[in-house]
Amino acid sequence: MKKDLNEEHKEEFQLERVAFFSDAVFAIAITLLNIEIRVPEIHAHKITDKEILNEFVKLIPKFIGFIVSFMVIALYWLSHHRIFRYVTSVNQKLIWSNLLFLLPIIVMPFSTAFLSEYYSSSVKFPLIIYTLTICLSGFFNFRIWKIIGNKKNNLSSNLDKVIVNYNCTRALTVPILFIMTLLLSFLTNWAFILPILILFVPKIITRYYTKKYPEIMEKYNK
Amino acid sequence: MKKDLNEEHKEEFQLERVAFFSDAVFAIAITLLNIEIRVPEIHAHKITDKEILNEFVKLIPKFIGFIVSFMVIALYWLSHHRIFRYVTSVNQKLIWSNLLFLLPIIVMPFSTAFLSEYYSSSVKFPLIIYTLTICLSGFFNFRIWKIIGNKKNNLSSNLDKVIVNYNCTRALTVPILFIMTLLLSFLTNWAFILPILILFVPKIITRYYTKKYPEIMEKYNK
Amino acid sequence: MKKDLNEEHKEEFQLERVAFFSDAVFAIAITLLNIEIRVPEIHAHKITDKEILNEFVKLIPKFIGFIVSFMVIALYWLSHHRIFRYVTSVNQKLIWSNLLFLLPIIVMPFSTAFLSEYYSSSVKFPLIIYTLTICLSGFFNFRIWKIIGNKKNNLSSNLDKVIVNYNCTRALTVPILFIMTLLLSFLTNWAFILPILILFVPKIITRYYTKKYPEIMEKYNK
Amino acid sequence: MKKDLNEEHKEEFQLERVAFFSDAVFAIAITLLNIEIRVPEIHAHKITDKEILNEFVKLIPKFIGFIVSFMVIALYWLSHHRIFRYVTSVNQKLIWSNLLFLLPIIVMPFSTAFLSEYYSSSVKFPLIIYTLTICLSGFFNFRIWKIIGNKKNNLSSNLDKVIVNYNCTRALTVPILFIMTLLLSFLTNWAFILPILILFVPKIITRYYTKKYPEIMEKYNK
Repeated sequence: MKKDLNEEHKEEFQLERVAFFSDAVFAIAITLLNIEIRVPEIHAHKITDKEILNEFVKLIPKFIGFIVSFMVIALYWLSHHRIFRYVTSVNQKLIWSNLLFLLPIIVMPFSTAFLSEYYSSSVKFPLIIYTLTICLSGFFNFRIWKIIGNKKNNLSSNLDKVIVNYNCTRALTVPILFIMTLLLSFLTNWAFILPILILFVPKIITRYYTKKYPEIMEKYNK
Repeated sequence: MKKDLNEEHKEEFQLERVAFFSDAVFAIAITLLNIEIRVPEIHAHKITDKEILNEFVKLIPKFIGFIVSFMVIALYWLSHHRIFRYVTSVNQKLIWSNLLFLLPIIVMPFSTAFLSEYYSSSVKFPLIIYTLTICLSGFFNFRIWKIIGNKKNNLSSNLDKVIVNYNCTRALTVPILFIMTLLLSFLTNWAFILPILILFVPKIITRYYTKKYPEIMEKYNK
Repeated sequence: MKKDLNEEHKEEFQLERVAFFSDAVFAIAITLLNIEIRVPEIHAHKITDKEILNEFVKLIPKFIGFIVSFMVIALYWLSHHRIFRYVTSVNQKLIWSNLLFLLPIIVMPFSTAFLSEYYSSSVKFPLIIYTLTICLSGFFNFRIWKIIGNKKNNLSSNLDKVIVNYNCTRALTVPILFIMTLLLSFLTNWAFILPILILFVPKIITRYYTKKYPEIMEKYNK
Repeated sequence: MKKDLNEEHKEEFQLERVAFFSDAVFAIAITLLNIEIRVPEIHAHKITDKEILNEFVKLIPKFIGFIVSFMVIALYWLSHHRIFRYVTSVNQKLIWSNLLFLLPIIVMPFSTAFLSEYYSSSVKFPLIIYTLTICLSGFFNFRIWKIIGNKKNNLSSNLDKVIVNYNCTRALTVPILFIMTLLLSFLTNWAFILPILILFVPKIITRYYTKKYPEIMEKYNK
């Protein structure tokens, strides 16, 4: 009996380590986003507020990039957080999908800096790399929900099919929005406004599911 | 019965992850403060202690900036630590306020390096950015105390209104001191001494509350 | 009685700290792998996709290095994760072996960047350093399995001799593959393909052990 | 009754956060030690192993500095690990001493890089800074043992006076060794060999205490 309890405890500890390792990776990646913004060097005889302000203005695209990527990583972390609400044990497939989900997160500080550095209406390549990074994360996020949602894998408990579908839909939101931004950027210079929708689309999805499955979603959000 | 225990355990684990993710961000931001201080490069034929000392003296403003920001981040971490003493569950509003509280913490290494690099009596812009960073943290720190203090949200237990007010007052201390430093810096070159008060003002607030609500504060400090 | 429970709890907490400290080191090292890939600087009058693409192509060896090292660190973390499934207490020997296991992990971002920067068919030194880093990790990984597998040390529970041998064999896979890559690189320019086997060799070892010890391995993989 | 259990659980959680926050800081500082070692840039027409080796040799002092500081941080982490074996609750004094213990740990990557860059027999200043960093850590390590050893503070359980003295003695070992190294460096160029003793002096202290207090030390090492 005691042995069983210990074993259960060990399994829980193994599970926690996967979550905490992922948390550490998310935390480091989100913090390193900002390290790419370097203090401007000013080579003037006498430094005044005007010169500093001029240099600071050049950093604004980097700050916008930082905030967008902060939001993207935060959304993926929140999804990861929701995932582990249901996970009861891990297998090799889940652990590797989790590691491959973290890989593009780790690349985010690079692709953000790359996009911020060369963003302009005539240049598309950095946006393609950025969108690719986000799509990879989104794909593995989606896959993890599918893996734990599959009853055969026996990795979760109390996880309703509706919740899996709801979260899979949400997992695809960010990638789809950025693919649309990329496509739209060939047509108009205002495409960069589209990602602001990542603040609203999840809410629309939530409202849709709440209307269709009121009891399940209420329990989910309690 | 067993299921309920499991669910309670899961909720606790979800709560712990929010705290540990935040801890990791605080830990990384506080450690990266120092990475902005680079070893000076000396291009002399023969390097002597005198030359090294000369270069090291130039780093002193950066060390002062490092120590001030270390204290600021430490104070915010301590406040975060006190917050989770009461939190019993998390909702979307709390999680997002927590993420937005962490955003300016992540920016601190940048704004510290920016301020240290260009601090002088004739330049105000870096100090404005630094103060802004601190005000944002202070505001979300304040907001989190309000959210968990609001009985309707049902996110905390054993949290007295007095404790909420006490901590909200403390949350505003650091921003107010830095706003005053900024304003004073237009009048005198000695304004930079003001932030030293962050070591004393919290104690004065504590003393005031301890006198007015001796039992509540005694239990709080036990 | 209560005291005993507390003491047991403390010992568990001490154990968890070793695991979480290691997790943090793994997480930081794996994330810093990418920080070595810097956004290319382009000094052109008008920046176009063609120029950016040209610069990006030069980064491809660095991305390959990043992915290989990501896999290597991931495999070592997974081994560490399996180790702590069995560890029930720690002694000085285990803690120091663990620290010395982490030392080459910390060096990985350097040796990866060093290898990526100077990898070519005519240069061997960076590959020697990289292989050395991996061999050190592999050796201490192997040693930790031996330490916890030794019944005299009394540091593990439910750990079958077969499982120790299985994991010791796996611990040596990565170093042996990279030593072979190094040796082969003196004969052929295609040696760099060999490390791809790290995705398959563990599976072959697992299959071999599963055939030979079906019950033990089934329980291990449950 | 249930409330008391919850409160006890919360206090434990608050304690764990202090330990894990410290672990994260230790982990980041120990990993950043290596980031200061940069891949050498070679500006040759054709890069050969000889040129790479020449540049790598110049990095050897940095690797020695890395390994020494790795050992120093590891020893302080181990001491921190031993501290929390006894701590049962935290107060403001302990939390602040802990934060001030972490401050010089955060500075270690800088002071290590500074020492490695300018270490030579004719230059003393970087060694003074390095020794100062280590003395500060040692002092706060010592202070924390004193705080938790003081029965009046009521922060620990099962902590024998002998164990406090033993660990206070150990806390002072590293600083004393480095002060001696500094002083000796004025007399001989071979002073840098002295820090190797940090691998042996703790063992001597342990042997001394084990002889004098065999039962207490046996229980401590069990």
